[in-house]
Amino acid sequence: MSTVPGFGALLPRPVSVRPAPGECLLDPAARPEVVLVPELPAEGYRLEIGRDGVRITAADAAGACHAEQTLRQLKGPDAFRAANIHSGPWRLPCGVVTDHPRFRWRGCLLDVARHFRTKAEVLRFTDLLATHKLNVLHLHLTDDQGWRPEIPRYPRLTAVGAWRRESMVGRHDGPERDGRPHGGFYTRADLREIVAYAAARGITVVPEIDVPGHSRAAIAAYPDLGGGAEVDVWTSWGVSAEVLDPSESTMDFYRSVFDELLEIFPAPVIGIGGDEVPGATAAHRGFVARIAEHLHARGRRALGWDEVLDGPPLPSDTIIGAWRDGAAAARAAAAGHDVVLCPERHVYLDHRQSAHPDEPVPAGFVRTLADVHGWEPEAGPHVLGVQAQVWTEHLDSVRRVDYAAFPRLAAFAEVAWSSGRRDYTEFLPRLREHHLPRLDALGVEYRPLDGPLPWQTRPGVQGRPR
Amino acid sequence: MSTVPGFGALLPRPVSVRPAPGECLLDPAARPEVVLVPELPAEGYRLEIGRDGVRITAADAAGACHAEQTLRQLKGPDAFRAANIHSGPWRLPCGVVTDHPRFRWRGCLLDVARHFRTKAEVLRFTDLLATHKLNVLHLHLTDDQGWRPEIPRYPRLTAVGAWRRESMVGRHDGPERDGRPHGGFYTRADLREIVAYAAARGITVVPEIDVPGHSRAAIAAYPDLGGGAEVDVWTSWGVSAEVLDPSESTMDFYRSVFDELLEIFPAPVIGIGGDEVPGATAAHRGFVARIAEHLHARGRRALGWDEVLDGPPLPSDTIIGAWRDGAAAARAAAAGHDVVLCPERHVYLDHRQSAHPDEPVPAGFVRTLADVHGWEPEAGPHVLGVQAQVWTEHLDSVRRVDYAAFPRLAAFAEVAWSSGRRDYTEFLPRLREHHLPRLDALGVEYRPLDGPLPWQTRPGVQGRPR
Repeated sequence: MSTVPGFGALLPRPVSVRPAPGECLLDPAARPEVVLVPELPAEGYRLEIGRDGVRITAADAAGACHAEQTLRQLKGPDAFRAANIHSGPWRLPCGVVTDHPRFRWRGCLLDVARHFRTKAEVLRFTDLLATHKLNVLHLHLTDDQGWRPEIPRYPRLTAVGAWRRESMVGRHDGPERDGRPHGGFYTRADLREIVAYAAARGITVVPEIDVPGHSRAAIAAYPDLGGGAEVDVWTSWGVSAEVLDPSESTMDFYRSVFDELLEIFPAPVIGIGGDEVPGATAAHRGFVARIAEHLHARGRRALGWDEVLDGPPLPSDTIIGAWRDGAAAARAAAAGHDVVLCPERHVYLDHRQSAHPDEPVPAGFVRTLADVHGWEPEAGPHVLGVQAQVWTEHLDSVRRVDYAAFPRLAAFAEVAWSSGRRDYTEFLPRLREHHLPRLDALGVEYRPLDGPLPWQTRPGVQGRPR
Repeated sequence: MSTVPGFGALLPRPVSVRPAPGECLLDPAARPEVVLVPELPAEGYRLEIGRDGVRITAADAAGACHAEQTLRQLKGPDAFRAANIHSGPWRLPCGVVTDHPRFRWRGCLLDVARHFRTKAEVLRFTDLLATHKLNVLHLHLTDDQGWRPEIPRYPRLTAVGAWRRESMVGRHDGPERDGRPHGGFYTRADLREIVAYAAARGITVVPEIDVPGHSRAAIAAYPDLGGGAEVDVWTSWGVSAEVLDPSESTMDFYRSVFDELLEIFPAPVIGIGGDEVPGATAAHRGFVARIAEHLHARGRRALGWDEVLDGPPLPSDTIIGAWRDGAAAARAAAAGHDVVLCPERHVYLDHRQSAHPDEPVPAGFVRTLADVHGWEPEAGPHVLGVQAQVWTEHLDSVRRVDYAAFPRLAAFAEVAWSSGRRDYTEFLPRLREHHLPRLDALGVEYRPLDGPLPWQTRPGVQGRPR
C-alpha cells in the first residue's frame, strides 16, 4: 500500500517513459494543470510529474482523460476507490510519460439486449472502459430476446419488446426455461445521460439496432414487421428464424427508428447489424444497404457486421465489423471500406477462458488471457482499430459480465493501445501485481488467474463449447 | 422539463419555506457558498436562493449535505443524473428554506448477508439514502446464509462462510433449491471505502455482526463456534437452529471479530444482533451482554434487537432496536435504554406492498405506501429515531431491492425527517409528479404506483404472506 507503483506498473503500456529522480507529494484535492496542444497525436498526452507538481499536456479532451487515467495508476490501487481511505498526499514518482494510442478505434461491445443491464451498470462499465483507455462503447441495443431503447413513436417496442416471459438457462436444445420474466429499457434521457457520461471520459457510444435478423423482439411488438405472424420475444438463445419482412413499410418504420436514434446519439457511427440472417434474400440484403444509405444521407456512417459485404454495394463510408475471419477484413478493405477488427476467434469475451469444466456456462472457443494478449491484429490502411465483444446470453448479471470481461479486457486494452512487441511473460506479473489490485479496488469481480471462485461457478449448467 | 419544480416539490418536506419573487439562473459548474453556523439545530441548514446566487448556512457537514440535496431537488429531475444532459444554467425559484430533521437517527438496514450486494450497489444505495436525507446505513453483514466482512485473523469466515451452494427460491418447506452458488465478501479496504463514501454524504455506517443466533455461516467456517458439529452455510430461509455455543473460546473469537470491526468502522454504534435465538439459555443471553460490555469498554455503544432486553442487564448506553411491537420500545425506555423504532409491522420493506397476487414473492404483512407514510412513531425522551429494514431473502438482485425499497422509503423519509402532520392526499401527488421523476432519473426501479411492471413479477414463486 505504501510503495509507489512506478512507471513499470502502467497498463496499457505507454509509448515512452523518462523517469526522473525524486517523488511528488500530491494533495488529493489538487487538480493538475491541463494544456491542450493540438499538434500532439490524436488522443495523445504528456504527463510530467515533478517534485513541485503535475502538468498534463494533451492533444484533445480525450488525451487529457487518458493522462488522468495514467496519473491514477501511478497513485496506486486506492486511487480507484470511490472515496479516499487515506489521509495525506499521494506519492508519485517523478518523470515524464509521453503517450498516444496505436489504434483510433478501441472498442468494446456490450450486449444489453440478451440481458438488460441497468443504467448504473452501463455507467460503471463505461468507467471501466475509460480505465483501460478504450474509447468506443458499442451498445448492442436490440435482438431477438429484447428491445432496449425507448422510441416514443412506437411504444410497443418497449411495452412488448423490452421483456420476455423467461429465459433459457445455459445452451441446449431442450424446453427447459427459468420461468422468470426478464426485461428493462432505457428512456431517451437515460441514453442521453449515458452518452454525456461517456463523452466526459473520452468515450463515444455507438448504438446498434440490428436489422434484418436478430429482430424478433421488434416483430413481437409489431407483427407486421415480420410479415404478420404473432411471435413472442424469444426465450431461447441462438439465431431466431424470424427476420424482418423487407417491405417498404418496414423500411419506413426503421427509418423513423434510426432517425430517433440519431437525435440521441451524436456518434459519427451507427450500428445496423446485418449479421446472421437465416434465409436472407436479395431483398433482405438490399434492406441493409438502404438503411446504410439513409444514415449516409444524414451524415453518419453505418457500421455493419461483415455479412453486409454479401449484399449490394454500400455507401463507401460504411464501416465493416470483421467478426468471422481474417478474410472478411481483407474483403472489406478491397471493397474500399474501413474495418474494425473484432474476430470471434480472438476477442469474443463471452467465450470460455479455459477448458476446465468449472468455467461457468462454458461457451465458444477457449480463449485464455494469454491468447487475447497474444492476438496480433493485422493492421492496414483501412483498419480503424479493434473491438472486443461481450455478448450476454450466458451473462445474466453484472457480476457475470465482470467475470467474462476481466482480466481479458485488460490484455485487449494493451493490444489496442500499445505499439510494439508484447511479451506475455512481462505482462502477466505486471497485471498480477499492479493491475488486479486496481480491479480489486474498483470492485471488479474478474476471473482469478487460477480459476473461478466457488460462487462464480455454475455447476450443472450446460454451455456449448466449440 | 422546463418548468421550475418549486418549493412545493420538496420531499421530505422542510420545516419552513419563504418564497421570494424571481428566479435564479445557476451555472451548472457553480459551487454554492457554504457557511457553518454551529448554533443551528444539528444537521440543520438554511438554503437561500437569490437572483444573484445560492448561499448555504449549515449547522455541520451533514446539514450542508442536506442543503445540497434540497438544492438538487429544486433544480429538477435531471439534476439526479450522473451526467448533465442540458446546456445552459439551472433555473431555481428564489426563496429561503429553513430546515432540520425531526429525528436524529434516520436509518435504513440493508441485509447484504442473505443476498450479497456488490460494493458498487452498496455505494449506490448509500447515495439513495442521502437523496432522502437519511443518515444511518445499518449494514447487516452476517447471518445463517452468509458472512460478508473479511476478518484476516479468521480467513475461513469468508473462504467458507461467504458463499453457499444454492438458495431457496421463495419461501416453502420443501427441498427445492436453485442449484446456483451465491456469495461474495467485502475486504477491509472495501468497507473503509463504504464508510468514507457514506461519511462524505452525511451518513454513518453502523455494521452488524449478529450473535448468538443467525450465525450458521460462521459455524460452517469454524464448527467449534457451534459446539463442533459440521454444518453448511444455510441454503434455506428462516431461523436456523444452529446458534453459537456461548463458551469462553467463542467469546474470545467474537471479541477479536468485533475488535477488527472497530478498526474499520468509526461509528459510535455497533450492531450485535441478539434476535431470534432458538433455545436461548441464560448463557446465550449472557453472551450478548458480554459482547455489549466489550464494546462499551472500547467506547462504543451496542445496538441490539429488542430480544436482548430478556437477558441480564446491559450497559446503560446500549441501544435497542424495537422491531417486535410498541411494548418493546416502552420496556427499553423503562430500563433506561435509548431506542430506535423499527417495527416489523410498519417499516419492514421486504414485506409485500399490496395484497395483489402479482406482488413478487409476496412475504410478510401488506404494507402499502400509504401505510408507511401514515405510520406515526411514538416519540419519547429515549427515542433516538426510526429505521426501515430491507431484508433480502427474496431480493436476489439490486433491481429487486429497488422494487421493495421504493417508493416506500421516500414515504419513510418523510416520517423520519419532517415534523408536523402528514397528509397522504398531499404527499401522493407530490411523489407522483415530482419525486418519481427524480427516481426515474436516478435509475431506481421502484414499484409503480399501480403495480409491478411485467418483468418485476415472479409468477409461480411462493412467498409467505402473513
